[in-house]
Amino acid sequence: MFVEKLKNSARKNRSLVCVGLDFDPEKAGETFRKDPLGFNRMVIDATIDIVCCYKPNSAFYEVLGRKGIEALEKTIEYIDGRVPVILDAKRGDIGNTSSAYAKAAFEILGADAVTIAPYMGFDSVLPFLEYPDRGVFVLCLTSNPGSADFQRFESNGHPLFIHVAKKCNEWAQDKNPNIGLVVGATQADMASVRAVTSLPFLVPGVGAQGGDLKAAITAGYANGFAVINSSRNIIFPAGTGDAAPRVRAAALSLREEILTILQSGGLYL
Amino acid sequence: MFVEKLKNSARKNRSLVCVGLDFDPEKAGETFRKDPLGFNRMVIDATIDIVCCYKPNSAFYEVLGRKGIEALEKTIEYIDGRVPVILDAKRGDIGNTSSAYAKAAFEILGADAVTIAPYMGFDSVLPFLEYPDRGVFVLCLTSNPGSADFQRFESNGHPLFIHVAKKCNEWAQDKNPNIGLVVGATQADMASVRAVTSLPFLVPGVGAQGGDLKAAITAGYANGFAVINSSRNIIFPAGTGDAAPRVRAAALSLREEILTILQSGGLYL
Repeated sequence: MFVEKLKNSARKNRSLVCVGLDFDPEKAGETFRKDPLGFNRMVIDATIDIVCCYKPNSAFYEVLGRKGIEALEKTIEYIDGRVPVILDAKRGDIGNTSSAYAKAAFEILGADAVTIAPYMGFDSVLPFLEYPDRGVFVLCLTSNPGSADFQRFESNGHPLFIHVAKKCNEWAQDKNPNIGLVVGATQADMASVRAVTSLPFLVPGVGAQGGDLKAAITAGYANGFAVINSSRNIIFPAGTGDAAPRVRAAALSLREEILTILQSGGLYL
Repeated sequence: MFVEKLKNSARKNRSLVCVGLDFDPEKAGETFRKDPLGFNRMVIDATIDIVCCYKPNSAFYEVLGRKGIEALEKTIEYIDGRVPVILDAKRGDIGNTSSAYAKAAFEILGADAVTIAPYMGFDSVLPFLEYPDRGVFVLCLTSNPGSADFQRFESNGHPLFIHVAKKCNEWAQDKNPNIGLVVGATQADMASVRAVTSLPFLVPGVGAQGGDLKAAITAGYANGFAVINSSRNIIFPAGTGDAAPRVRAAALSLREEILTILQSGGLYL
């Protein structure tokens, strides 16, 4: 069961930190410029006991061609189930095509969960739910400017993202409880999603993209569960010299910040 | 300019047929079971003078792992610009992630166009529009049962898919004219999209998925432009014996059917 595995990992490492493994040759430094697997191993070794999960974004490996896909495969192999891996791929297609994407993510790459786009509806999600031990996070509300274009499209006083959250709730009850939602943005928006579902949230946008950590905890984790993603701020930390201790310090700092907010809100892991 | 290239190809080969290169080892036959590139070369050799474009769906190559990605790369290399290639990937992410997807599709794989999911809004589409000679087809209205879940979500009497079509129209005027829409489903729905935009349509769902060819021409091609995709019905034709002549016959048959509908409607290529 993916969601249980995620919660167990959070408890064990006392951490809601999800580290985004978004390799960038321009920022990886001379040692790792051409070595995404080596870079990821460095980040993993520096953080695996203090994070809840890892989230590689497929785009940053696809852009490196076949060698990138190999590095992604081997990164997940290297993590080897020690903490869950969410493949951020935002896939969405139908029927046998969707089945092929699910097989690629879960069987070929070996991810524990994958992010999914909701636009094509239930039959685009279903093939992923047929893996009882794996999970999906469905895009619900994101924090980029373009989220206003369609996600906030209103009908009967409710924006589309609330409709998506409710549908995912139904699917979780009917088909497979291992569904979560990608929810970013403000405290008010996050609270409005939490009001209609207790499904786990994957919260992007903390760190390089801005975002409000306290909102993510008090409106996202409370009455449900949430993991907080940070990518560039952790894997490309400021400063010079050996990267590993700086990466660890950045992850520890976010972990502590979250633990402090949890404690001050009377919440616990 | 992608759209011009697509129209020129349609005129040159007198064809609106888009062949979906959706490799399936179970259906490819003994000769090609483990050889997606060989299979695609067979299909391409049998059809390249009678089709408008090819559309490989990324899922069917990702599911084969690194070797699949290699076959996809080499398939596009083999087509070598003779007709345009639309990579069906339905990608959708933001900022530098979206830029990485655009680079992967256009520079690494060498596709002429790519399909995109609209849920994350304008900043998920923009990086693809920064390639002036490449195109995108944005998911607008699909014909699967799940299309009812969100695409038909209504506001002020207009479903979401009409809102998507109108936004794409604006983006095509402001940023890059090489935008098209993925539009399937019924004559009435297709006509309602055509009423708000003259952008080209990519029409899936003809053939194995069902769908109405006449609707696609009279409501999709008329007052705009449309290419008609068929995958399994062409690449895995009924019958036994050498596959190439049967593949060619299936593509020719769809091409003729389309030309007949065009003629009877007073339309021309």
